[in-house]
Amino acid sequence: MNNQNNESSSASLYQEACQVLAGGVSRNTIYRNPYPYYAQSASGCRVKMIDGVEKIDFANNMAALIHGHVHPAITDAVTEQLRLGTAFTLGTEAEIRFAQHLCQRAPGFEKIRFVNSGTEATMAMIKVARAFTGRPKIAKAEGAYHGSYDFAEVSQTASPANWGDSASPNSVRVAQGTPQSVLDEVIIFPYNDPEKVIAILNQHAGEIACVLIDPVPHRIGLMPGTNEFINAIYKWTRENSALLAFDEVVTFRTKYGGAQELYEVKPDITALGKIIAGGFPGGAIAGSNEVMRVLDPAGEMLVPHSGTFSANPVTMTAGRIAMEMFDQKAVERLNQLAMKARSQINEAIKVADIQACVTGAGSIFRVHLKPEPPSNYRETWIAPSTTKLLKELLDELFQQGIMMINTCSAALSTVMTENEIDKLSQAMLQGFRKIKPKLENEKL
Amino acid sequence: MNNQNNESSSASLYQEACQVLAGGVSRNTIYRNPYPYYAQSASGCRVKMIDGVEKIDFANNMAALIHGHVHPAITDAVTEQLRLGTAFTLGTEAEIRFAQHLCQRAPGFEKIRFVNSGTEATMAMIKVARAFTGRPKIAKAEGAYHGSYDFAEVSQTASPANWGDSASPNSVRVAQGTPQSVLDEVIIFPYNDPEKVIAILNQHAGEIACVLIDPVPHRIGLMPGTNEFINAIYKWTRENSALLAFDEVVTFRTKYGGAQELYEVKPDITALGKIIAGGFPGGAIAGSNEVMRVLDPAGEMLVPHSGTFSANPVTMTAGRIAMEMFDQKAVERLNQLAMKARSQINEAIKVADIQACVTGAGSIFRVHLKPEPPSNYRETWIAPSTTKLLKELLDELFQQGIMMINTCSAALSTVMTENEIDKLSQAMLQGFRKIKPKLENEKL
Repeated sequence: MNNQNNESSSASLYQEACQVLAGGVSRNTIYRNPYPYYAQSASGCRVKMIDGVEKIDFANNMAALIHGHVHPAITDAVTEQLRLGTAFTLGTEAEIRFAQHLCQRAPGFEKIRFVNSGTEATMAMIKVARAFTGRPKIAKAEGAYHGSYDFAEVSQTASPANWGDSASPNSVRVAQGTPQSVLDEVIIFPYNDPEKVIAILNQHAGEIACVLIDPVPHRIGLMPGTNEFINAIYKWTRENSALLAFDEVVTFRTKYGGAQELYEVKPDITALGKIIAGGFPGGAIAGSNEVMRVLDPAGEMLVPHSGTFSANPVTMTAGRIAMEMFDQKAVERLNQLAMKARSQINEAIKVADIQACVTGAGSIFRVHLKPEPPSNYRETWIAPSTTKLLKELLDELFQQGIMMINTCSAALSTVMTENEIDKLSQAMLQGFRKIKPKLENEKL
Repeated sequence: MNNQNNESSSASLYQEACQVLAGGVSRNTIYRNPYPYYAQSASGCRVKMIDGVEKIDFANNMAALIHGHVHPAITDAVTEQLRLGTAFTLGTEAEIRFAQHLCQRAPGFEKIRFVNSGTEATMAMIKVARAFTGRPKIAKAEGAYHGSYDFAEVSQTASPANWGDSASPNSVRVAQGTPQSVLDEVIIFPYNDPEKVIAILNQHAGEIACVLIDPVPHRIGLMPGTNEFINAIYKWTRENSALLAFDEVVTFRTKYGGAQELYEVKPDITALGKIIAGGFPGGAIAGSNEVMRVLDPAGEMLVPHSGTFSANPVTMTAGRIAMEMFDQKAVERLNQLAMKARSQINEAIKVADIQACVTGAGSIFRVHLKPEPPSNYRETWIAPSTTKLLKELLDELFQQGIMMINTCSAALSTVMTENEIDKLSQAMLQGFRKIKPKLENEKL
């Protein structure tokens, strides 16, 4: 591995990038100090950096590539679609076939509307909930990431300096300049704490259009919502004529019908993105006939909704093939592989004797530099000094040929085998050993 | 042309679609009563319906396809990129090369950030303006379409029933359930009326982050903003420390550097989409170094901004090639062709002796069933009975083999020749003759 060249090539590309892109990047998730790395190409579960060095890809474009890179079935179908056209001011059969497939995956998916990203999906879902209920407010969990729509992003990056009392967390702006009026329309509650949640929701009963839940929220800490938590919120929404809205943009991979399969109760509406788009830009909302009717252009059309690229046949084709291949058997196999990974990482934690733990569900997991799994955003939150150690761990993994998501999370792809899991846990052991003295120093 | 079969195939696909898609469509723009038409494939400026009937495509996916369908240079480059990968959790050279190209097209484009749609571009632009100024409100023109971000869509569909006094138009919700607080953050002004605009803006000086302008707004009527109008707003933004924000998602095709080339003054920030994405989902914001700095993750990061699919190398590659081919010469040739089309349609209007007119700029134009070009949204607005006649005109054009945008607008592509323009104006003449008696009846 010629690491020096990779460093130089990436450094020099970044210099060029800084001349034309804000901050030299077009997505903060790829930003890295002193410079981001650049990809040349990828295949299966391996990504080749700009100078040819390969890494095993556990990031999979922020958990969006369920079959890794350049899966031949997807590549062939898209190549064929390119010859037929990429976009029309007309319907295509591709959007119908894909919607049919999605509808049979989960009982609550009676109608679909496609959009172009997870951000657009969450925004559309909130607009549908407001139109259906005629109410202005939403409630969401502190720390949860739901894309960059202002209302959805409130309190995503709250910190001890501004988050306030945990029994009634402040609505904290993410983007500077977010209007106070936006913050006032968003009710924040602590994750996985049914008692506090219901007390908070009760204070705003009659104003809340929907309670927005990511059932395995990555930024909160990737702990699945407990049955008690989801049930309590579901019950509250029934009693108060609000909608239960799930953000399954990341978590849909957890089961064949999404993480919602894990619970007795079902959401009224779900936002989808990432893996359902087959490696291309896309997203969707799925919900009951009753709720989705607000989008019907032949009806009252309470929510007029379009989108130049929505349901484009490239995304529709890639998405359908990706999801058809991610059948019950593939989901279960991948979840087994993730269980094995978590078990091996737990073993590495024991061997290294480091204060760390693993959270997750299905085929995603996250490593925390904490002795016990956190139970909410405030417990997951780490001080900048620990963030620095986490970055050291990520750098060490990268040197060992492993690319993770920047929270030290992994999203597996179906093209992975036990071989890649072994490499991950070996690299993790080395990484733990490297940062252990500093972590212990910090705890003193 | 076997129209019967096309009708039946589309009708039967729509029946299937209604089982799984909200309202049977995934974009309201393709909706058509009693059912939308479905595309099978397309090539150049021709689109083939599901049963093989061909139409000349003047809609070009809502003005997004500047080179028509399946341009070999774009198809080849994307086919090659598919083999290398469609998305990484890393930077790629493709985003740098495309940003470099865009930056040299307009003097105000010092830094770029890519997003996934025009809706995302306008949303990001507004968030940047709020962060830069620390102010909550935006001002926009009544009737202007800027995507489906709530703040950007206010008053897009205002009607005589709710638009209020033209000297201070009401902020009218588009989606039912839009919070009153959103409406309160959006100041509405009449298009192309500098005196009224400045009077309205003055009432909110100190609160306005940006004045949002589409310089040739399609839904307002596709009349270019006058120099006087743009200059007055520019001057007001300088005096009141607000930003001038252009939405050039549709209009960037007007000149090599966008419709902003038409004016002496330049916007601080511009939203892009449609043609810049080369037939794939994409968009961007472009602005001055000073303003775009709020996005820099190495700085204060006043606006944290990511996006799983943003700057994906498929869109970056397709977009760069499409825009490189749309050089000064191609822009001028296409604008000449549009001038010819407008002149021939004006001739058809004279020959048919119908009360109609044409507006537009660059390579887009719109036919109005009005004797004189309207000058703002209220003049452009037509009663439902006239909308019905416009639909009859569009149906007649469709029967004659011409597909238009549903406002009776056309967006030319570079693969068109005088041959297609002749067919358009001939079909237009027939259409005018068909609806003329009804239009005259209505005016009585």
